[in-house]
Amino acid sequence: MQIDIVSVIPQVFEPYFDASIMGRARKAGIFDLSVHDLRDWTHDRHRTVDDAPFGGGQGMLMKPEPIFEAVEDLAARGDVKPHVVFFSPVGTPFCQAEAERLAGYERLLFVCGRYEGMDERCYELADEVISLGDYVLTGGELAAMVVSDAVVRLLPGALGDEQSAQDESFSDGLLEYEQYTRPADFRGRCVPPVLLSGDHGAIARWRRESSLERTARLRPDLLDKLELSEGERAFVDDIVQDSETQGGM
Amino acid sequence: MQIDIVSVIPQVFEPYFDASIMGRARKAGIFDLSVHDLRDWTHDRHRTVDDAPFGGGQGMLMKPEPIFEAVEDLAARGDVKPHVVFFSPVGTPFCQAEAERLAGYERLLFVCGRYEGMDERCYELADEVISLGDYVLTGGELAAMVVSDAVVRLLPGALGDEQSAQDESFSDGLLEYEQYTRPADFRGRCVPPVLLSGDHGAIARWRRESSLERTARLRPDLLDKLELSEGERAFVDDIVQDSETQGGM
Repeated sequence: MQIDIVSVIPQVFEPYFDASIMGRARKAGIFDLSVHDLRDWTHDRHRTVDDAPFGGGQGMLMKPEPIFEAVEDLAARGDVKPHVVFFSPVGTPFCQAEAERLAGYERLLFVCGRYEGMDERCYELADEVISLGDYVLTGGELAAMVVSDAVVRLLPGALGDEQSAQDESFSDGLLEYEQYTRPADFRGRCVPPVLLSGDHGAIARWRRESSLERTARLRPDLLDKLELSEGERAFVDDIVQDSETQGGM
Repeated sequence: MQIDIVSVIPQVFEPYFDASIMGRARKAGIFDLSVHDLRDWTHDRHRTVDDAPFGGGQGMLMKPEPIFEAVEDLAARGDVKPHVVFFSPVGTPFCQAEAERLAGYERLLFVCGRYEGMDERCYELADEVISLGDYVLTGGELAAMVVSDAVVRLLPGALGDEQSAQDESFSDGLLEYEQYTRPADFRGRCVPPVLLSGDHGAIARWRRESSLERTARLRPDLLDKLELSEGERAFVDDIVQDSETQGGM
């Protein structure tokens, strides 16, 4: 996968995408990252990318010209037309299913706004607009990093073994089960004995129950979309009811 | 505000928090950032921070010892006890109201996991666990950056003028209105004439309507919590009904 990022602070990306899992995936050729300075598409001495909003108001907006030129120029480079993504709190909320969908593109182009936002006409360039969540950031850079990370880790080989991305939160619609490593006794807090039993069937059942229990207690909103057995449905309904009773007392 | 971050890839934070708005706020003393290498709290030659999960499974988990030592050590430094935040898809979904709440703390300590997750016992150290959204990342680093950015920009003076954080998406429960800057005519796409009129009352009404229209069309889920006038409620109900009719055709 090829990822292009356009930003006025291009220097913030490389350290993250050279480190740890992303760095290894990049060196292994699983994805390639090119970061571009938006100011390369300005034509004035001050390399201006922003201007005051029409109608008054605080702060500055991203001007349309450099953004149009950058996207058009980058789209014309290379063999594959990029899928163009902008970031805004107004966009579609990002979730694991969206990450899986984006992992299917050969080339992604992420355009990062800053300041108070972008001239509305810029969004015509976007194949889609993504929101990380219902909060406001100083720019799209962290959103581009988050989406890149979430997408790249799903690419075959990125995590080093094919299983890792299949057994985790949201992969089956549930939160992930509790996990433990050594020591078995840490300051008197002990690992659940079943995990030390070597009984793979019992461990699988315990993990499924842990996932269901946590999801029912912490994120009951996720339960509606799930296909559960009758026994599992009764199990989570009990937990949800208990939480609601406690919450109401 | 003092922000401490613990991570096994401490080098990824500085470039972002030295740039643009974060860099200026940091230089102005609005917040201070200290990034700590978790491996400084290991005691073996390989500076080991991870181990295999009990009960089997792919990947590695963060061990409890270095994390407990790091948090206890950092909490004992300085005059103010930190509010300790961990990141996990299992946590409370982050939103603008949470950012505003966190902006009230004098000192935040963010602990970033990596690999397949953390030994469950580590979470005893957390005053709270935050999830960026319903997606999975390779570690907590980007979550710590996102939450830091969302929180710091709310601190007085961080955006350069006090107004900027008050007139934006979610500040009044709505998505932000459409914004435009020069040129008034860009490749034949023109700025809405009202924004060029100089009529401040008409501009304010247009912006309110733009916010309501976008929220009703793109995020009708946000409307339920809002206090709207009777006229505004009828306006958004019409848009929601239209969208639903179109969606069903």
